[in-house]
Parts: sequence; C-alpha cells; structure tokens
Amino acid sequence: MTAQTGEYPQTAAGPEAINLGLGQPSPSLLPLALIREAAAARLGAGADPLVLQYGAIHGPQSFRESLAELMTRRYHLGAGHEVAASQLLVTGGISSALSFTAQLFARPGQTVVCSDPTYFLARGVFESQGLAVEGVPVDAEGIDVSALEQRLARGAAPAFVYCMPSFHNPTGACLAPDRARRLVELAERHDFLVVADEPYVMLGFAPEPPPCMMTYDEGRGRVLSLGSFSKILAPGLRLGWAHAAEPLIERFSLHGALRSGGGLNPVIASIVQGVIEGGALDRHIDHLRRTFEARAQALMDALRQHLPRLVEGVAEPRGGYFVWLPLPEGCDGAALLEAGSEAHGVRFTPGSRCAVTRDLSRFIRLSFAFYEPDELREGARRLAKLLTDAGYSVTA
Amino acid sequence: MTAQTGEYPQTAAGPEAINLGLGQPSPSLLPLALIREAAAARLGAGADPLVLQYGAIHGPQSFRESLAELMTRRYHLGAGHEVAASQLLVTGGISSALSFTAQLFARPGQTVVCSDPTYFLARGVFESQGLAVEGVPVDAEGIDVSALEQRLARGAAPAFVYCMPSFHNPTGACLAPDRARRLVELAERHDFLVVADEPYVMLGFAPEPPPCMMTYDEGRGRVLSLGSFSKILAPGLRLGWAHAAEPLIERFSLHGALRSGGGLNPVIASIVQGVIEGGALDRHIDHLRRTFEARAQALMDALRQHLPRLVEGVAEPRGGYFVWLPLPEGCDGAALLEAGSEAHGVRFTPGSRCAVTRDLSRFIRLSFAFYEPDELREGARRLAKLLTDAGYSVTA
Repeated sequence: MTAQTGEYPQTAAGPEAINLGLGQPSPSLLPLALIREAAAARLGAGADPLVLQYGAIHGPQSFRESLAELMTRRYHLGAGHEVAASQLLVTGGISSALSFTAQLFARPGQTVVCSDPTYFLARGVFESQGLAVEGVPVDAEGIDVSALEQRLARGAAPAFVYCMPSFHNPTGACLAPDRARRLVELAERHDFLVVADEPYVMLGFAPEPPPCMMTYDEGRGRVLSLGSFSKILAPGLRLGWAHAAEPLIERFSLHGALRSGGGLNPVIASIVQGVIEGGALDRHIDHLRRTFEARAQALMDALRQHLPRLVEGVAEPRGGYFVWLPLPEGCDGAALLEAGSEAHGVRFTPGSRCAVTRDLSRFIRLSFAFYEPDELREGARRLAKLLTDAGYSVTA
Repeated sequence: MTAQTGEYPQTAAGPEAINLGLGQPSPSLLPLALIREAAAARLGAGADPLVLQYGAIHGPQSFRESLAELMTRRYHLGAGHEVAASQLLVTGGISSALSFTAQLFARPGQTVVCSDPTYFLARGVFESQGLAVEGVPVDAEGIDVSALEQRLARGAAPAFVYCMPSFHNPTGACLAPDRARRLVELAERHDFLVVADEPYVMLGFAPEPPPCMMTYDEGRGRVLSLGSFSKILAPGLRLGWAHAAEPLIERFSLHGALRSGGGLNPVIASIVQGVIEGGALDRHIDHLRRTFEARAQALMDALRQHLPRLVEGVAEPRGGYFVWLPLPEGCDGAALLEAGSEAHGVRFTPGSRCAVTRDLSRFIRLSFAFYEPDELREGARRLAKLLTDAGYSVTA
C-alpha cells in the first residue's frame, strides 16, 4: 500500500491485486443516483439561490435538524436520550475535523494519546499540528482504560485521547460500556477531552449498534464525537459532523476558518439533507449493513477455510470494515507484503502501519468493505498461498 | 455588523437596513442554473460513480487542468507565462486554506505580518493557530514594502507576510509591480513566505487585470497564492485553490488532513469543472465584471453627489468589492454605526474592525457587490444623512 505522490494512500492498488487494505466502499456501493436526485431537487429551478451563499457557521439549521433526527433513529442512545441539532456542527469530514480539533483543543508540543493500534492516517493529522503521539493498547473490549489510568498517574495529562469506540480501525473492537464510563470519568478527573472518531456507528450488523461515545458524556462536555457521511453515503462529499455538548460545540464554532468561511460545505449539506429526508439514506444504510455483514461473513468463512490456524482467536466482526488478523509467529506483515504480494496478487495493511509504539508487525488489517464475497474468498485463498509459499503453516 | 451566535459575520443585517458592509455577491448573482446543469451532467446516469470516492490529494487531475487553463486565460501573467496544473492544489476555499497554511508554514508563537488594514476575519484564522499578528501599512499602491523592510531590519522574520495584492480588502488598492518585486526579494533575503489572498484577481474592471502575485515569484517558491470560487461563482461551494511553485505545492499536500481525507471537495470540484468547460464560467465572470463595474460606478457617483467632501481623495475602484472611505475629522466609524445606523437604515464596516494596530477608526469599508445601483445610491444618501444628523459636514 505504498502511495505515489499525490495519490490517496488508501486507494493505491495495482489493477490485478486484491487489495484487502482498501478502507473504502466499493464503487457499486456509491449511490450516484441518490446524490443526483437530491442535487436536482435541492438545486432545482424553484430552489432558493441562497443555498449558494456563505453558510451558517454551525451548518444549515434545517440540515442539522434532519441529521439530529437521523442520529436519534440510528444511534443506540438509551431510553429518553436524543440528539439535538444544537449539539451538532457540520464539518468537512473527520480528517479536517480532526485537524480543527487539534488546533482548537491542543497546543503544539502537547500529547495526544491514541489507541494502539490506531487509524494509521490520524497520526499525520496530529503531527501536522506539532502534537506528540503516544499509544495505549487496544484489546477486544476497546482501549485499555486501566493502562490509560496508569499512564495518567505517571505523567502530564494529554490534550485529548483519540479513540474509535465503535468498530475500531483496525481491530474492529467495540469499547465496553464500563470502560467508556471510566474513560469519561478519567477525562473529568484529569481534565482532558475524549475525541471519538465514529464513522461506523451506524454500520453495526446487529439491529442494536453499540452506544455511541456521547451516550456516556451525560452533559459533562468531555466527549467530542466526530461522525461522517464518508462511510454511510460517499467519501467524496467531504461532509461530516461534530457531536458534543453545546459549550464544546460553541468552542468549536469559534475557529477562525469557520468564522471567515461561513460553515463547511453548505451546498453539499443541502444535497445530503435531500438524501436524508424521505428516508433514502436510511434505506441505503440498511443496504450497506446487509451488504457488509454478508461480506464480513464471506471473508471470515474463507479465512476459516484457508487459514484456520490464524483465525482461531479472531472474533466475528459485529460491524465496521475490518478484521485484524494475527500472522504465524515470526512472520512480519510488512515483509510479507513486500516479498510476495505482487506475485500472489493480494495486498493488505501491515499491522506495523497502524502501530503507535507497540510492535504489531505480526498483525495485518483486512477490510471486507471494498470487494464482493467472491473476491474476498479469492483474496483469502491468495493470502493463504502467500503464507504457505513463505514457509508458514496456516492450517495445522 | 454584530454577529449573533452561529450567524455568519459577513451576512448579519436587519431586513430593512442597507448594509454596505456585506462582502458577498447579491442573491441575483448566484448562478443556480449553472451549478444545477453542471451537477446534472457530472452526476448524470452515465457518470462514473468514482466521482463519489475519496479524491486525489491535490484535487482531481482533470479539474486542475481545467482550472489551469481558466487561470491562464483570466490572469494577466505576462508573455510566455502560463499556469500549470502541477502548480495547483484544490482547497476548500481561502479561509480553510489559510488555516492549513498557518499550520504548515508557521509555528505557534511566530508572527504573521498583515497589511494594515486587512481582511478582518483573517486575523481570527491566524489566532486560532496561536500566531501573533503584526501590521504593516497599506497605501494606494498596496502594502508599504519600505515599511516592511524597516520592520525586517528591526526584528525576527515573520513566518509569512499575508497580503491581498489585487483589489485589497478593504482598501481596493493594487500592489504596484515594483513593490511586488521587492516583496519577493525580501522574502528570499529574510526567508519568509508571501501568502497572497487573491479572490478578486479575475474581477478587475479593465480588460487587463493587475498581475497576480505568482507573476513575481519566477520559480523561487516564495509566493503561495490562494484563490477561490467564492467571488467568481458561489461562496457556498467552499472550493478554492493554492497556486505556487511545485515544491511548495508538494509541501502543502503533506498536510495530514489531506493525506487522510483524500483531497478537499472532489464532488464539488467535479461540478465546477463542468461549469468551467464549455465556457460558462468565463461568461459568468464577464457578467460579474460588468455588473460590479456598474455598481462601483453607481456608488462612487452617489458618494460624489451626497458626500463630495469625503470622497475627494478616494480613487475610483478598478475591481474587487470595496471602497475605503475616510470620515470627517473626529468622526469614529464604529461609534457612528452604533449610534445611528438603525434609525438611518444604513450599515457599513467600521475601519477599526479591519485595523491591525493602526488607528483606522476614521475610515469605513463600503462594498458595492451586494446591492443594485438604486440601493447603493439610497445607501449613500442615508450615509450622508447619518453623518449630517450627527453634526458633520460632508458637502462643504
């Protein structure tokens, strides 16, 4: 997954290889017709040309209301909880929202604690702001809050903890509720922010998704949850949101670029509002959930068939995009990719790429989002062949 | 021009007042049909759904080529010069590009030198990044490069000089070519960047616009010019570009948010490409130039009629959006606005709002972009009445 200059690092793949590293929806899941129809309606002959004017700093009010209703329907918030439009600010997607967050809520030289492993491109966003990045391990129940607590006892509090509580990238883990509660308590006690990167909350396979991180904030203003339309609609829209208690949203809205530019992507927000209203987005999300569940199943079945020894301890994905696969002892994922992927026509994300400070070279990240079941099965077969040809036993 | 929470500060106006502070195109100049038609074509049934995928970090290549051709046609670059696609990186408009620039090319605590007065919302963008802001005066020939030279002799070089070489906001001044050359020489000698905010380059009234700042860079990599579709097409698109020598563009492209998010606004870029190709944007820009020239003329004629004493030394606008009007001696623009604008139904931007460190309370910024000639004439009449009622002589 080497990126050529100017190429988006998540999409670099030879035309023949099956690249199980691709963390993006397949072209067949990009709903061009939905966007086209919404654009035609929202920019139609009877539309208000003011949709093209500078927008409101927090994003268009009617869009925020539609989004709040969608989130209330689609997030598992607990009885009596709902998302309010006043808790939302429209962003240009999670990547740029993370950049704004780093500017607003950290001073260069301060530390960000990330789950280790973590989303591999987040690190660069923090480093662009001159922040130091430290890791705290993730296990099957999400970020290890006891390890975080020990770390907090040892040194200065970080500016924020960056985590992915729902269907973690790359491990797929969901943060256990008791850990989530303790994380917010620690944030209060040590005065830091919990920045939750949550693009997959609505992409759980079970009817009840795990609660979003804001469920545990309970008005304390310690959680800043970043959501996105990239994984539930289309990445190229560059539209997302920040979800937090109102005082935190107000602090976010003071960013100079929002004051000057008048809100991020109001035209796109208007089009997406059209996709939300009338239920097209709900139907699309249901379609994605079913599709990804079938793909995850196909990949896991194929891994069990071709690499039973490796997949033994791997939990069934409950949502999101990823499977985090251990390699045989002594096998380095990056070296394996380098040595054999071209000849064997299979690629993946080496665990070392997702590591903060841990040695995760014996893991690889596989995504089931981009390919059809048949291709995923073929990818798993090729991966097994690659490992076997490299002298590792994957079946015994 | 007080902004309510969440309201875009450039658009706050009571429904009855004529707000000559509004720095945005009027609704009648927002080309909804052009955007609608381009969207229908670019998102049409035969379109490639990959337009919705993560984009290239620098922006779509074919869009950058179309933009380079537009700029080569529309910028006055001098014989043999042209804009190359490789010198362009697509941004989400100038405000967010300034934020990225501040992150990439300055360390918090460093200084940005701004023209004084300056675009009043740029300051907040720099301050969001923890930068100190210093002013160097602007006169009728643009930023005073001799004053800058003296400032450079006295202290540490700034991270960058932020200027508006074409139709400066708020003064309307264009940077004289000899000053522009000296500015780039100073940037080389003292190792700083010239960040040129140039949204109005294509909105000169004369057939030959003043040269853009990149004309003077000559491959030295000292100029980063930021352009935008906000003033030539529509602000709500949130689409712009950085124009610089390739090594500088490559440095810009290393921003973590671009690496992670895959380019800014690829869907909007695709739609705007449709507006550029076939010449619709050229025709629209010509229409805007003619319209703004007529509006500027109407405002200046009315100022000459109703406030001849004040407008005496004011140069005729040659492009852009603004007239920078001196008030009678002893008159404070902010106090005048506060005291009388509600009763008199006229608003404007007080000069103090645009000041960096100079005392510019005796100036006001008037925009001719938002209103029709009749409204501009009425605005000038009300302004004269406001001043007269406050006891100032504007005719004698």
